[in-house]
Amino acid sequence: KMLKRVLCTVLFMGALPSLAEVSQGHISVVLLGATGDLAKKYLWQGLFQLYMDQVSSGHSFTFHGAALTALEPGQRLMFDVLKKLACPPDESPNRCAVLKDQFLKLSQYHQLKTAENYTMLNREIETLLRQEGLKEAGRIFYFSVPPFAYTEIARHINSSCRPPPGAWLRVVLEKPFGHDLESAQQLAAELTSFFREEEMYRVDHYLGKQAVAHILPFRDQNRQFLDPIWNRHHVERVEIVLKETVDAKGRTSFYEQYGVIRDVLQNHLTEALMFLTMELPANVSRAEEVLQCKLQAFQSLRGLEKNSAVLGQYQAYASQVQEELQKAQDYVSTTPTFAGVLIHSDNLRWEGVPFLLASGKALDERVGYVRVLFKNRAYCTQSETLRDAGHSQCKAKQIIFYIGHGALNTPAVLVSRNLFRPVMPEGSWREAVGQSDLHIFGQPLSDYYVYSPVKERDAYSVLISNIYHARKDFFITTENLLASWGFWTPLLDSISHQPLRLYPGGVENQHLLDFEMVSGEVAFTLAEPVELLNPNRLMPSDFRTIQSKFRQSPLVSAWSEDLISLLASDIEKTASRSVAHSGQFHLALSGGSSPVVLFQRLARHHYAFPWKHTHIWLVDERCVPLTDTESNFFSLHNHLLQSVRVPYFNVHPMPVHLNQRLCVEEDRGTELYAKEIMALVANASFDLVLLGVGTDGHTASLFPQSENGLEGAQTVVLTESPVKPHQRMSLSLPLINKARQVFVLVLGKGKHDITTLLSRVGHEPRKWPISGVSPSSGQLVWYVDYEALLG
Amino acid sequence: KMLKRVLCTVLFMGALPSLAEVSQGHISVVLLGATGDLAKKYLWQGLFQLYMDQVSSGHSFTFHGAALTALEPGQRLMFDVLKKLACPPDESPNRCAVLKDQFLKLSQYHQLKTAENYTMLNREIETLLRQEGLKEAGRIFYFSVPPFAYTEIARHINSSCRPPPGAWLRVVLEKPFGHDLESAQQLAAELTSFFREEEMYRVDHYLGKQAVAHILPFRDQNRQFLDPIWNRHHVERVEIVLKETVDAKGRTSFYEQYGVIRDVLQNHLTEALMFLTMELPANVSRAEEVLQCKLQAFQSLRGLEKNSAVLGQYQAYASQVQEELQKAQDYVSTTPTFAGVLIHSDNLRWEGVPFLLASGKALDERVGYVRVLFKNRAYCTQSETLRDAGHSQCKAKQIIFYIGHGALNTPAVLVSRNLFRPVMPEGSWREAVGQSDLHIFGQPLSDYYVYSPVKERDAYSVLISNIYHARKDFFITTENLLASWGFWTPLLDSISHQPLRLYPGGVENQHLLDFEMVSGEVAFTLAEPVELLNPNRLMPSDFRTIQSKFRQSPLVSAWSEDLISLLASDIEKTASRSVAHSGQFHLALSGGSSPVVLFQRLARHHYAFPWKHTHIWLVDERCVPLTDTESNFFSLHNHLLQSVRVPYFNVHPMPVHLNQRLCVEEDRGTELYAKEIMALVANASFDLVLLGVGTDGHTASLFPQSENGLEGAQTVVLTESPVKPHQRMSLSLPLINKARQVFVLVLGKGKHDITTLLSRVGHEPRKWPISGVSPSSGQLVWYVDYEALLG
Repeated sequence: KMLKRVLCTVLFMGALPSLAEVSQGHISVVLLGATGDLAKKYLWQGLFQLYMDQVSSGHSFTFHGAALTALEPGQRLMFDVLKKLACPPDESPNRCAVLKDQFLKLSQYHQLKTAENYTMLNREIETLLRQEGLKEAGRIFYFSVPPFAYTEIARHINSSCRPPPGAWLRVVLEKPFGHDLESAQQLAAELTSFFREEEMYRVDHYLGKQAVAHILPFRDQNRQFLDPIWNRHHVERVEIVLKETVDAKGRTSFYEQYGVIRDVLQNHLTEALMFLTMELPANVSRAEEVLQCKLQAFQSLRGLEKNSAVLGQYQAYASQVQEELQKAQDYVSTTPTFAGVLIHSDNLRWEGVPFLLASGKALDERVGYVRVLFKNRAYCTQSETLRDAGHSQCKAKQIIFYIGHGALNTPAVLVSRNLFRPVMPEGSWREAVGQSDLHIFGQPLSDYYVYSPVKERDAYSVLISNIYHARKDFFITTENLLASWGFWTPLLDSISHQPLRLYPGGVENQHLLDFEMVSGEVAFTLAEPVELLNPNRLMPSDFRTIQSKFRQSPLVSAWSEDLISLLASDIEKTASRSVAHSGQFHLALSGGSSPVVLFQRLARHHYAFPWKHTHIWLVDERCVPLTDTESNFFSLHNHLLQSVRVPYFNVHPMPVHLNQRLCVEEDRGTELYAKEIMALVANASFDLVLLGVGTDGHTASLFPQSENGLEGAQTVVLTESPVKPHQRMSLSLPLINKARQVFVLVLGKGKHDITTLLSRVGHEPRKWPISGVSPSSGQLVWYVDYEALLG
Repeated sequence: KMLKRVLCTVLFMGALPSLAEVSQGHISVVLLGATGDLAKKYLWQGLFQLYMDQVSSGHSFTFHGAALTALEPGQRLMFDVLKKLACPPDESPNRCAVLKDQFLKLSQYHQLKTAENYTMLNREIETLLRQEGLKEAGRIFYFSVPPFAYTEIARHINSSCRPPPGAWLRVVLEKPFGHDLESAQQLAAELTSFFREEEMYRVDHYLGKQAVAHILPFRDQNRQFLDPIWNRHHVERVEIVLKETVDAKGRTSFYEQYGVIRDVLQNHLTEALMFLTMELPANVSRAEEVLQCKLQAFQSLRGLEKNSAVLGQYQAYASQVQEELQKAQDYVSTTPTFAGVLIHSDNLRWEGVPFLLASGKALDERVGYVRVLFKNRAYCTQSETLRDAGHSQCKAKQIIFYIGHGALNTPAVLVSRNLFRPVMPEGSWREAVGQSDLHIFGQPLSDYYVYSPVKERDAYSVLISNIYHARKDFFITTENLLASWGFWTPLLDSISHQPLRLYPGGVENQHLLDFEMVSGEVAFTLAEPVELLNPNRLMPSDFRTIQSKFRQSPLVSAWSEDLISLLASDIEKTASRSVAHSGQFHLALSGGSSPVVLFQRLARHHYAFPWKHTHIWLVDERCVPLTDTESNFFSLHNHLLQSVRVPYFNVHPMPVHLNQRLCVEEDRGTELYAKEIMALVANASFDLVLLGVGTDGHTASLFPQSENGLEGAQTVVLTESPVKPHQRMSLSLPLINKARQVFVLVLGKGKHDITTLLSRVGHEPRKWPISGVSPSSGQLVWYVDYEALLG
């Protein structure tokens, strides 16, 4: 009732829009969690800013603070906050005072706890609008509450507080949106049962940071300059960094569940990464186009592995957790408070360019930036003193989106003067006059064109304005959110028991957290100086040299990851020797799941591998089209061939699909393949054959009791598998035994029984085909991981 | 006679070795051109140094200066030089004075002009040795004469001056050794008819520069540090530079014939390049092993093209040439006095690493260096001020072989302290205490470990000592020389009429000679500021929009380079549209030379091209194996496929090589290809077919009067070409005309006549198969460059 009168008063005041002018209709903003920290610190100020900006827009507004607290104390708490609302420096004090007074009158507190409370709120809004004869434009519900409350609130809004047809509903959600892919999917599914996608505005407040929000417009407005250089040929590296000086003290109950990756990297830094790497849509302000390009960019990201990240924890964290969460003195937290992550995008534009994401608490300075460093492609003929005088091409070339704080202490866009003078929107960014003695990323500020915002705006003000304007491109859609979790979850899983480097915090960290890239991975630069938070586990060295022979042949054994590294290195050595010796390397590879990790390792870590001189053959193949996901070749292609440069002529898939049909004898695919081998491989003796072992003792596609391939003159045979797809093509045992080297890879607990058996039996290929592998003049080496060997 | 007595005196002086001690035998050194510039400036001093160093070695010496000048004036000239010989600072003045006196006594002048003179010299040496009862160890003939005199002198030495069996002959040759591959081969062949390879010592005095001579030993002694980083993964770039402040004044008669590439790059800088790039032999002091590795390194160098170099000439050069060589005022010299060259090595170690060679006269400073800059792979978490305090991994990492002059003004080896502390031979290099305020390559000297030679030695002293020690690894063998000329000659040929950038000289050059790398080539950074030595040529704008139709179809015309860009963009647009529409893009490509540039453009500039969804088909193929350099597919593979990521399954070479034989009808390759098209391409209607035109009006491999392919139902046909290889496989005209789009590319003056003809004739496919291209429901676009269109 109170509010109704206020609105009337406000509407009829001279300085304000008349009823005719509010013809755009009325907007009700409901802030859930109106007395919480975020609301106090940013949201009410953002709503007040919205009101100041839009008071003459033709919309009328009411603001409904809501919380679980009862009416009276809630009201008191809320108005204490509202009274402290600040006037922005760019607003005239008089106008602001008047508007603040009105804003307070238009604001009201509600207790929202039960279903009835929601019904009541809805009724109040309807009544007010009817009485004032106002058309309803829409309702904004801002969820500034813990995520466990989301579903309940969403249900109430959906059932009781939807505006009438013709008016819109916008629900604004604050992170965390889950803590991994599965939980995010679950939360998303629940929300989707209450709201349509276009009704949901998921906030990542980084998208409201002015420098971050300007990345896409900058790329768009400077296409002419960026088109030729925004790619792997010109960009040397990209750094996306948020450093904090504060630690997690007082917030460990939240932090201990999330850690720095979930808190900062998965959302804020990833969004900045996407703005940089995505292909530019024709229209950068169309949310749907932006989303599509972003999703494509997510698809191009190379999967993260354990060694894609370095992790740290500041030393005081453990005791803070013990104290705040009442944990025992020996409680060990594995939550990282610092992370450096190396990300690669595998599309043609960015292939090979390192994207370094880093964030941490208790660091030496507070600063956020996105830095694109270009390659130095120039040679300057003048001596250094002369060179540095002008804006020579030999100076570093950088584009920096300076998010805030740090030496500059303002959001900014910096472009090296030897790159180009950027096009910037005149109304919102202006050229800054720099302090000449300031150095930014190794260069004096005078080496850059520097732009800063005409009006510095808090991220939440920007976002609240964008909610009002329905600029969905400033928010995280469900697809976007799940793509991001899909990208980060495997890393989060693989590092959950990863050792963390302890750091003292602040400037004392010195070089302790510096890290560097090594073969597509990252590692701390300095050796581990102090104790690790490292769970006990058996070390490979505990097992090493248990045995050095298996079935009379050399045995290499290790944990599977180390084993794969060893095997990959040995394959590379064999390859280099073969190429040095004969100019070629003929490698026959098996299908199945074990080699996949090997293929990935070879693709990502063995830059010196002589692929150009390597011929790839298949040990066996399933009778399916090569493009079938069941095809061994398809897997080989996906995990290896598409990432390395083997000449087309050197790739030899098995001809299982001739004349558009599969493994028909009269098409004589086996003969064709045999001929191809004879024509290219000297003496039909492969340089290296890689085999696996099945739990039944099969190898290649030679199964126990097989009629073909265990003996005889035929080198390539059709066989029958006990499992689908039954039809197979395979190299024969006699051909395999002609190889110069045969490596057998056995991985995993599931192979322990067959491994044990094989260690005892003799040469019985009809029972266990693998036992017939015995190169006549070549060498056989077993690569068996500890799980297969020791169970 | 005189000399005999001197030698006796010297031998029996107390301070000097006794007869027993000269048991190693006698060495006669003959310096041809004993009164010339080089001899005056360096060689006599080098011989004196040799004498000082080796006087107690067990060898006795005599020194024979020789020239064309008659005995008496020659003697006077020569002894004027000898009297001025300097004592090195590291020698005691007394010992030096005694030795200098002896050296003068052991030296003698000879006129060497006629055959008799040589016979006489030989007799004198023999007589002296006999009389003194000395065994002959060997003879050194140092050719310090113009190269035109080489053959004559070589003949005389070979026929009259060879030492007796058991003693060695060493002839020392000074560059130039030819001015291109052919002349070098000729000179080498002549010399080889007189001397054995092991008798010839070709001097490149850079190999005597202490910093250059130490490259290989440095790599050898620091293998443990360099092995992991001496490769493309760690090295960002290499610069090999010799800058001079002097110009060619007074030497234009020589310089005008050679220029900077022949004078400095082909020899000095190339040798340094080889020391850096060659694989390290097991034993770096074994000349034969070093040579083999060097020759392999030469083989790995990517061929140079016109745009591998930027060239300049200092402004005063033209008038100096006019004056000194009495040329007319309008004489234009095309001799470069500055060159910057980008070199790539295609082996796995160096692939992609730019090696920049630069040298010039009339530059702003005199300095020579070899600089290896490593990639920055680290991220330093600390802010900049803290970072720069220590020897952080974020500072630049460099290894510099400082040849001399410049800011350091001494030979030196510098290694960034954040790389490693190098192993240096203690006797010959010592750690230098630096001037702290000096900056070298952007870093204070204190950032480096700095080593300088214990004894600074002139290059010629080093080399003369190495001749004495038979260290052939310090000299250029015939194979090495020819490999180098083989590498440089194509560039020299292609730039002989290249425009040169004129530069004022000295500091005024400013940034005029700065250059940068663009797609594997180099170009000056600044646009041409002043007049070029550049023939007039029509500008593209003169022609634009002359016509917009050709044979009733759209015509796109431009200079060839622009045309290729337009065509590549149009192909990408078509591809994106097709993929958006059907998920696939079926592209049929022609062979021949015109598309090569297009392929390269697509590979290098079109990062967003949807290769993953593109199918590549061949329009036609020659009946040769796919790996034959004549194969269209081979060229397509080389210039496009190996640089982009088309899935293996989407590549469809024509089956011209079935059952290990070529285009045999009964192998039914045409049917196979037709079936493959039917199976994958909807309606057998390609999304885009790219065609060319022959001067006879053929297109694809459809030639005038062809029996197959111009009409009828067959979609893939075998045809006969009038030129070799005659047998071809081709898509038929009816199949081509089913395509959705057909682009025809016509490039070059050679196509002007057929273009003109085609603009007039109608549909006559039997006469001119290209005239039958007329897509039934698709679109035809002509891409014709100005040269083809306008002649």
